[in-house]
Amino acid sequence: MFAEAEADPSLSKDEFKPLEARLRVALLNAQYRRLEKADKTLMIVIAGIDGAGKGATVNQLNEWMDPRHIKTLAYGPAEGEELERPPFWRYWKDLPPKGRTGIVFGSWYAPLIIEAASKKPNQEYIAAHSAAILRFEAMLAAEGVQVLKLWFHLSAKAQTDRAQRLLASPETSWQVSPVDLKVAKRFDRIRNGAQIVLNHTDSGHAPWVVIPSADENMRATRTAEAVLAAMRQRGVPRIPASFHAHSSPTRIVDQLGQLDYNAKIDKDDYESELGLLQGRLARAARSRKFLDRSLILVFEGQDAAGKGGAIRRITHALDARQFDITPVSAPNSYELSRPYLWRFWRHLPRHGRVAIFDRSWYGRVLVERVEKLIAPAQWRRAYAEINDFEEQLAASGAIVLKFWLAITPDVQLERFKEREKSPFKNFKITPDDWRNREKWKDYSAAANEMLARTDVAHAPWHLVSANDKRYARVQVLRHIVQAMEDQL
Amino acid sequence: MFAEAEADPSLSKDEFKPLEARLRVALLNAQYRRLEKADKTLMIVIAGIDGAGKGATVNQLNEWMDPRHIKTLAYGPAEGEELERPPFWRYWKDLPPKGRTGIVFGSWYAPLIIEAASKKPNQEYIAAHSAAILRFEAMLAAEGVQVLKLWFHLSAKAQTDRAQRLLASPETSWQVSPVDLKVAKRFDRIRNGAQIVLNHTDSGHAPWVVIPSADENMRATRTAEAVLAAMRQRGVPRIPASFHAHSSPTRIVDQLGQLDYNAKIDKDDYESELGLLQGRLARAARSRKFLDRSLILVFEGQDAAGKGGAIRRITHALDARQFDITPVSAPNSYELSRPYLWRFWRHLPRHGRVAIFDRSWYGRVLVERVEKLIAPAQWRRAYAEINDFEEQLAASGAIVLKFWLAITPDVQLERFKEREKSPFKNFKITPDDWRNREKWKDYSAAANEMLARTDVAHAPWHLVSANDKRYARVQVLRHIVQAMEDQL
Repeated sequence: MFAEAEADPSLSKDEFKPLEARLRVALLNAQYRRLEKADKTLMIVIAGIDGAGKGATVNQLNEWMDPRHIKTLAYGPAEGEELERPPFWRYWKDLPPKGRTGIVFGSWYAPLIIEAASKKPNQEYIAAHSAAILRFEAMLAAEGVQVLKLWFHLSAKAQTDRAQRLLASPETSWQVSPVDLKVAKRFDRIRNGAQIVLNHTDSGHAPWVVIPSADENMRATRTAEAVLAAMRQRGVPRIPASFHAHSSPTRIVDQLGQLDYNAKIDKDDYESELGLLQGRLARAARSRKFLDRSLILVFEGQDAAGKGGAIRRITHALDARQFDITPVSAPNSYELSRPYLWRFWRHLPRHGRVAIFDRSWYGRVLVERVEKLIAPAQWRRAYAEINDFEEQLAASGAIVLKFWLAITPDVQLERFKEREKSPFKNFKITPDDWRNREKWKDYSAAANEMLARTDVAHAPWHLVSANDKRYARVQVLRHIVQAMEDQL
Repeated sequence: MFAEAEADPSLSKDEFKPLEARLRVALLNAQYRRLEKADKTLMIVIAGIDGAGKGATVNQLNEWMDPRHIKTLAYGPAEGEELERPPFWRYWKDLPPKGRTGIVFGSWYAPLIIEAASKKPNQEYIAAHSAAILRFEAMLAAEGVQVLKLWFHLSAKAQTDRAQRLLASPETSWQVSPVDLKVAKRFDRIRNGAQIVLNHTDSGHAPWVVIPSADENMRATRTAEAVLAAMRQRGVPRIPASFHAHSSPTRIVDQLGQLDYNAKIDKDDYESELGLLQGRLARAARSRKFLDRSLILVFEGQDAAGKGGAIRRITHALDARQFDITPVSAPNSYELSRPYLWRFWRHLPRHGRVAIFDRSWYGRVLVERVEKLIAPAQWRRAYAEINDFEEQLAASGAIVLKFWLAITPDVQLERFKEREKSPFKNFKITPDDWRNREKWKDYSAAANEMLARTDVAHAPWHLVSANDKRYARVQVLRHIVQAMEDQL
């Protein structure tokens, strides 16, 4: 894998000049074609031996292409609020839109390579993190984010020689970092660790390319060639199913049909229970232990099922600084130019906070499925992607609870009519609502499949009978309070 | 000012019901009209006595209006990366777009009121922070962000009674926070402090409205009335000049005309000087002291003056994790729906980092002025607004340096022709560049006025002769290195 690079091949100035001219023109043209089509993002992961010229490559790419459409994304060890979200959060939130290019330093490979190059690598960690990366990259590829991974490599001798040459003059000595000087002693470990990581994570849709880096001309040429090849690639490559997150087969039951829709609570009991539950919620949310956790609440259900009212009963118990409500409707153009989960990754709460989603990423397997806004393969894939997403949320300390507020068609009709009549509620009813109502069965089938496929221990669904609004509100609060009291 | 509120007026249920119905309809209609026009943002600042029902007001506004177009923005004491930017940063970055409404908790008034209600208020701080707020709100108002400030008030007795009433039952006791219970003892100080703050900061364009809050019906009604009146207000109110930031009169000199355009450096000296300066920059940027500072570099100049090349010579000396280049062109629709400085506030660096602006907020007094994209009053006002902005940057620890790379028309023509000929440089030249060239004199006049009005000690301009690219690069680096070595 590294044989060619460790032979330290070089290109003379005479060989390089015509190549450079040709590659620069081709790169610019390819870049503009992608900007125009705007159907894919390109993420160029920069990794490799320290002192192989990774930093210089950023300058090269910015000089050879139109830098206005390239974003350099550089990350150090996770810190501050990054530690309060899943490890992939910082990469998700910074994804450039389709048509654009991102250059990634300190990518999701950095911790993996450090581990693999350590004296006693933790094989379990390597296997788990590699698998997580494969799922991440498969999802990106399927959603139009192309990942190209460059490993800058050279022989141990060339690495040392380069550092010594630079150190010899005060005009260049500053280019050598303390890390560069430590490479020589650990070269074999880094090399072998990298080999394992690259083998684990090479794929047709997110390939590794080794760049011989001892010679600047060679490095620049091979980098440009790799980027050019990636930019010219059309369409989404076939992604073997084994790369995707997947869920086990599930029996789909008509859960919505089997619910008891007559459940109710009388008004006095309601007032009292509501107050007591809100008090418990307020205490849990103010507790010291919640400072290391977060709460993510997802609300789905038929139109007019009472999501807004239930949400207000929750926020009433919380400090305004502590919660954030994200109402979810059709994605705007800004959001459509990224993978569908992107807009939700951006709203993940910090520790000690509550994120409430009024509709959510489940739109993927509900409205987008039923209204045929996406291909069947896309929503079929989404169950496992969503499970994977929520597993990451739970692993980062979030308590994830999902509510389906369920009503019957007759109650919906009643509420629609009431909304139409009320001068201050009629904004809540639109022609869409009436149209959706005609597809009641399709939505119910989609909801039943969703409930079956995504009801997981780390992010359970609660199916709540909501023909009686008060009953539903108390149930929702009770589930939240129980989960928080259990887990804190 | 508080006399009416401290009389604790109330509304009976019978009086309230018809008012509520009328106000809800009117609020919704007003909200939709604003969404449709999308010419102004409304920011509702929520402040007042603790335990007066500020939190309940968020729920009310979200229930009475369409909550999808309202964003609650709640802030605690500044923490983490907020401390690495100016105090107003967090409010700037969260500004909702035109047409929308923001409800602000823990606003820019919070620290001021705490200070004013303390035992020995620091009058100097109060005066300075009030003045900063007046400038902030005047700029927001002038740029289409309407600010409405609500002070929730009640008598000391009503405040205590309410807390005791809630404490009496476990269903409501959780609504009383420890802070609420401390109000009684300090009521007079809070009241008098608030009076001073409200007097200092009341204005026609950002008025304070006192909301009597002892009775829930009265509170809800008066809140809705105040919001409704604000929503119905058309146009931008006249803002007295005294509210705006302003700069002293300045003599405008033809600095561009007086520059020595023959300055040059020979190639060998260049290579050597460049390397040495980059080394000094690298050391300064890695120094421990820089961890409490940041560096903001602004590049302006004629087209083809060599900004990109100069920037790459800087970034070459920096760690990729440490800098961020923001190329600035015409604002997109997303940016146009906020005040013009908003898109720059969003890119302010954390401590230990470098933000490089390839063109900048100075577009306001250059291209937007010359191309008549804005009214003369807008760019005339901008000099002082920009000085105020940069003063905040410097006060938060940023080293701010601004470069104008100056070339002569003949050199520009040469470079334009060269760009047109080169297959990998012709993307850098557009019809706009040729058009701008025809307005050379207008742009020079605008630049001279800008240099005169915004060259301040905390954010100096460096006018750099750039007919010789190498000379310009060395000059730029030298200024940066000197400023960093001086200040660190």
